[in-house]
Amino acid sequence: MINSRICEILGIKYPVFQGGMAWISDGKLAAAVSNAGGLGIISAMYGDVDHLKQEIDICRSLTDKPFGVNLMLMSPIAEEAAQVIADKKVPVVTTGAGLSTKYMKLWGEAGVKVIPVVAAVAFAKMAERAGACAVIAEGSESGGHIGETSTMALVPQVCDAVKIPVIAAGGIADGRGMAAAFMLGAEGIQMGTRFLSAEECSVHETYKDMVLKASDVSTVTTGRRFGGNTCRCLKNTFSREFLKKEYASDATPESVAEMGVGALRKAAIEGDTAEGCFLAGQIAGMVKQRQKAGEIVNEVVSQAEALLKGAEKWVK
Amino acid sequence: MINSRICEILGIKYPVFQGGMAWISDGKLAAAVSNAGGLGIISAMYGDVDHLKQEIDICRSLTDKPFGVNLMLMSPIAEEAAQVIADKKVPVVTTGAGLSTKYMKLWGEAGVKVIPVVAAVAFAKMAERAGACAVIAEGSESGGHIGETSTMALVPQVCDAVKIPVIAAGGIADGRGMAAAFMLGAEGIQMGTRFLSAEECSVHETYKDMVLKASDVSTVTTGRRFGGNTCRCLKNTFSREFLKKEYASDATPESVAEMGVGALRKAAIEGDTAEGCFLAGQIAGMVKQRQKAGEIVNEVVSQAEALLKGAEKWVK
Repeated sequence: MINSRICEILGIKYPVFQGGMAWISDGKLAAAVSNAGGLGIISAMYGDVDHLKQEIDICRSLTDKPFGVNLMLMSPIAEEAAQVIADKKVPVVTTGAGLSTKYMKLWGEAGVKVIPVVAAVAFAKMAERAGACAVIAEGSESGGHIGETSTMALVPQVCDAVKIPVIAAGGIADGRGMAAAFMLGAEGIQMGTRFLSAEECSVHETYKDMVLKASDVSTVTTGRRFGGNTCRCLKNTFSREFLKKEYASDATPESVAEMGVGALRKAAIEGDTAEGCFLAGQIAGMVKQRQKAGEIVNEVVSQAEALLKGAEKWVK
Repeated sequence: MINSRICEILGIKYPVFQGGMAWISDGKLAAAVSNAGGLGIISAMYGDVDHLKQEIDICRSLTDKPFGVNLMLMSPIAEEAAQVIADKKVPVVTTGAGLSTKYMKLWGEAGVKVIPVVAAVAFAKMAERAGACAVIAEGSESGGHIGETSTMALVPQVCDAVKIPVIAAGGIADGRGMAAAFMLGAEGIQMGTRFLSAEECSVHETYKDMVLKASDVSTVTTGRRFGGNTCRCLKNTFSREFLKKEYASDATPESVAEMGVGALRKAAIEGDTAEGCFLAGQIAGMVKQRQKAGEIVNEVVSQAEALLKGAEKWVK
């Protein structure tokens, strides 16, 4: 059975995280992944903190396995959500878009294990120094807000820089990606896009259909021009209009920032193909069918195990 | 010994290609890589066709092993260079920036094996249909002109689409990247940036120093705004100025295209840090020392072999 330090640290069976996707990853999806032996993760970016409390309770009612909450530290509700995570003694928190140093004491005292999502070596080092038990090195092929460096280039550089376990995220859709991540030095993987097609995923059916129909060149990045806000989503009317306005001569950082407001909710909840922003990673083209979340975990793990066991066949 | 179909097809010992880098990859570097058991590749984008002929002759004088020429099909000298490649019966040609269909007959009759570099699944399929013996799937973490999809996401999707061997390029700097590429389904790798530090590489010493000093966040992409010409290079005065002008409100596709003219030669030949464009991939941060090209090949292969042989340790 595939196994690494992160399994011991978190008390999970398989080193497979389900990414915390804003407006998408709820208690039901997280519980399904955790019940299958992975680490299900609820997104705190899904309404207000009352909603977060509710999803944590739903998750706990559906599984007795460890699960996590993903918190974007730049969110207006970050402070409140951080307190909820501590109060509810959530087993694991993954953090994005900032440094979690501020909450390390609060979470440490509550027994919450902290795993920051990092897109560069310097942030991985800072996370380790601050007491994180692992880091998620997220490549720029991921969906949503991304850094600049790809998984293939980022993971080995992060592994060389820290001693804590590194979880690879971005560009991973199946057991091939998982086995590759281990060869790069990672001890686990996180997948977001692949779980969009899960039966337990409550995202709008139109969203699922768009992912299932995607190819290798179906995503695009917005928010590059003025820096610091690059975001990967599926090509559609919204992203085409966004890019047209972003690169127009009269665009300003403010006008670009305004365009994104509410677009993610419109995609995830309403399935609005014209005005919704459908976040997805470059592996959307590899998602081919609706499946139970547990089936996804088992399929990915079995394929990775077979590949790793058989890897020596290449060395004759 | 690490081995795959591409070794049999090309008659090489190790499935390791040295990328054809414009103004950089010459006959001496290619011969050093081929002598070490890999596939050295001369760039045809290095002056005129007389220069290409000369480099092919130099390569032949230094090795009796197979080697290749890389040809950018949109180059003004493409037609002439294609004829030289046929006349000189170069063992392998790798092609970029276009479809090689036009020259398949010429090259086929001369016994030249054709391996297109592709950045998307559709081009891999076209290459296979046109009679290519393999494809190089190049991820967007590569240096120079790039597509949109990363190696981690691109390679498995290309492998699912074609039956011919797939060589992974982009984001590969060591044996970890090579082993990962094999897990993704590739049967070989191509590295460019790693060979910039080779003793036999004639690139300007300042270029080598810049690569050796690079970190994981030292590259940037230019040419995105107007599409079709995205290029990855090291951050320096040139790239900062380029991006400022590219994203300025008065920029046009023509004004942007003009800015790049001659900048690559200024970097590679003159080591001009202010006006030169220093192409490099995201793994520049992993290149730590000057080494002989043969040492690089052996080090990468040995590390990959050890990782692949030991991969089953993860499955307990």
